[in-house]
Amino acid sequence: MLRFSLEATDPSCRARAGRLHTAHGEVETPVFMPVGTHAAVRGLTPLELEKTGAKILLANTYHLAERPGPGLVAKAGGLHGFMSWDGPILTDSGGFQVFSLPKKEIHKDGVRFKSEVDGSKINLTPERAIEIQHGLGADIIMPLDECTPYPATLKHATRGVENSLRWLNRCIETHISSNSAQALFGIVQGSTFPELRIHCADSMVELDLPGYAIGGVSVGEGLDELKRIVDATEPRLPKDKPRYLMGVGLPEDLVESVQRGMDMFDCVIPTRYARSATIFTRRGKIRMTHKRYRRDFFPIDPSCACYACANFTRAYMHHLYQSNEILGTILGAIHNVSFYQTLMTEMREAIVDKRFMEYRKVFFENYASAASA
Amino acid sequence: MLRFSLEATDPSCRARAGRLHTAHGEVETPVFMPVGTHAAVRGLTPLELEKTGAKILLANTYHLAERPGPGLVAKAGGLHGFMSWDGPILTDSGGFQVFSLPKKEIHKDGVRFKSEVDGSKINLTPERAIEIQHGLGADIIMPLDECTPYPATLKHATRGVENSLRWLNRCIETHISSNSAQALFGIVQGSTFPELRIHCADSMVELDLPGYAIGGVSVGEGLDELKRIVDATEPRLPKDKPRYLMGVGLPEDLVESVQRGMDMFDCVIPTRYARSATIFTRRGKIRMTHKRYRRDFFPIDPSCACYACANFTRAYMHHLYQSNEILGTILGAIHNVSFYQTLMTEMREAIVDKRFMEYRKVFFENYASAASA
Repeated sequence: MLRFSLEATDPSCRARAGRLHTAHGEVETPVFMPVGTHAAVRGLTPLELEKTGAKILLANTYHLAERPGPGLVAKAGGLHGFMSWDGPILTDSGGFQVFSLPKKEIHKDGVRFKSEVDGSKINLTPERAIEIQHGLGADIIMPLDECTPYPATLKHATRGVENSLRWLNRCIETHISSNSAQALFGIVQGSTFPELRIHCADSMVELDLPGYAIGGVSVGEGLDELKRIVDATEPRLPKDKPRYLMGVGLPEDLVESVQRGMDMFDCVIPTRYARSATIFTRRGKIRMTHKRYRRDFFPIDPSCACYACANFTRAYMHHLYQSNEILGTILGAIHNVSFYQTLMTEMREAIVDKRFMEYRKVFFENYASAASA
Repeated sequence: MLRFSLEATDPSCRARAGRLHTAHGEVETPVFMPVGTHAAVRGLTPLELEKTGAKILLANTYHLAERPGPGLVAKAGGLHGFMSWDGPILTDSGGFQVFSLPKKEIHKDGVRFKSEVDGSKINLTPERAIEIQHGLGADIIMPLDECTPYPATLKHATRGVENSLRWLNRCIETHISSNSAQALFGIVQGSTFPELRIHCADSMVELDLPGYAIGGVSVGEGLDELKRIVDATEPRLPKDKPRYLMGVGLPEDLVESVQRGMDMFDCVIPTRYARSATIFTRRGKIRMTHKRYRRDFFPIDPSCACYACANFTRAYMHHLYQSNEILGTILGAIHNVSFYQTLMTEMREAIVDKRFMEYRKVFFENYASAASA
């Protein structure tokens, strides 16, 4: 079962350094989880992923339930065996993806939708979401929740919280009766309404779960609104449990949210951006296809020690992207994920050294100077 | 400068084991060169490429001359520096690609065509082909030749040989005057006409070049015709020089051609097939997308020790290809290139042990039993 130990708190803000203890190893927090939607992180072998410093991955229940199906994954030894990743894994509940579908029918027992793979009608209930995740076998699993879109009316957001609370209780019941060693988190909803967030958080904390997530973010609300949501919710979450901010985000979002006491993050951005030639550097994002990099024989990010930066120039990266060579995406993903991991490691060190706000200041000074192309 | 040492000859056929000594290390022959068209082997980092056992790569002059251009590559430290590959490299002359264009104008000084990148008119002369390759800086370079399509009339094939011979002499002149340490091979043309092949080979051998290629193959002639071409040409080539069969081929082509005294090969097949889910195994090619692999928890090829076979199942590979995950192409390329390298290593060992024909027999017995899907 999952344990969390809080190891340091920065005195000048709410930033925390901790450690997740899982059956598949320890993870230092704050941590960024690369996303392996179909049980594969786009462009990276598990070996390369490990070398980026990534310790824990996220896989998407919705996609894996559609293909190859939880039964097959279970037969392969769960996600760990199937994708050959020995470290911890977290699966979402599928709710986020289902609520992004244009056509779905939300009812008190869950949500009905049409399969994107074969068009069949699927009824995703809290029980089913947990059963699927039992088959996938991740270390951390998530309950079915109603993720309200942004912006949402108070009425809509209230219903989302009510559904999420009711479904969470049903998830817990199914989970407990299975004797699974997986850790089930709660997901706090409530859109942009502080009173709803507080109500939802307080109700979930009573259930004494091994971790809490803030959901219903990264749905277009922007960084200022995200900060307000975190600021409203975080004080209600227990200090001795990990806090996971779902689907966040850009480097600046991570810095702002670590400062606000968040411990875990996931996002497709580092690998998705790598596919479209957008590369993160300490001075901001750059578009590798810009002609200014055609004859630039410096490493992608001179301050980075990843395989891509240690061996290749921007001119070569530019050439790979211009030529549509897969290697561009691969090297871009190696670098972007490494960049995220380095950022998390540096933030953790700063928290332990009680100088997070100084780190934050220097980060934004450098990052703001980005020659964005 | 390139040296070649012949180390063993199989007494029961013409198969040879040798060694290329280059400024970038030694290469045991027979050898298969993966193709890095745009100075990148599709889907593989140089590190992964090295782990497959690949020792020498081929890069395409035609594509690199168009983008990023030989001047930029030279400034990056040649191809070795640009693509971060420390082993030997061979570049073709660009002739093969130009002769594949639908619109080109062959004249006595070379060939005129339109750039596929910017539409500009390009006149590729023997001198220019060599100058470009000097900029790219490969260990082995090739002369501009006229690659006749299959089938060709005797008249057309005769003109191809005449042009190739005249252009080779001009290439040598340019090459010698530059004092380059690169090794310039000759390319024997002559289509399917034994007398033309013999005439071309004899004329080129007089020039005492460091190696000889058989060109104008892999243009649709098929394995039987390929064997006849090699059988006609090989006896005219000096035993103490490497023989390179251009653009070949499938595993069965390699076995047949090693038996016939060929030392070097290149082909896009292992990486191209990996992109379309076709995977080589000791029992033949398999289509990884076939439904029979959906629940197959064996390694891709149980006899293979590559990273892909050591860590992943056919069921996972099937899933990756079904989900259009780049990782399918990456792992497929790792395996296919490893398969080719293992095949070459095994053939070399069999030659050294004087049991090549026995190896060949077992290879075809297994490979013919392929459950081709």
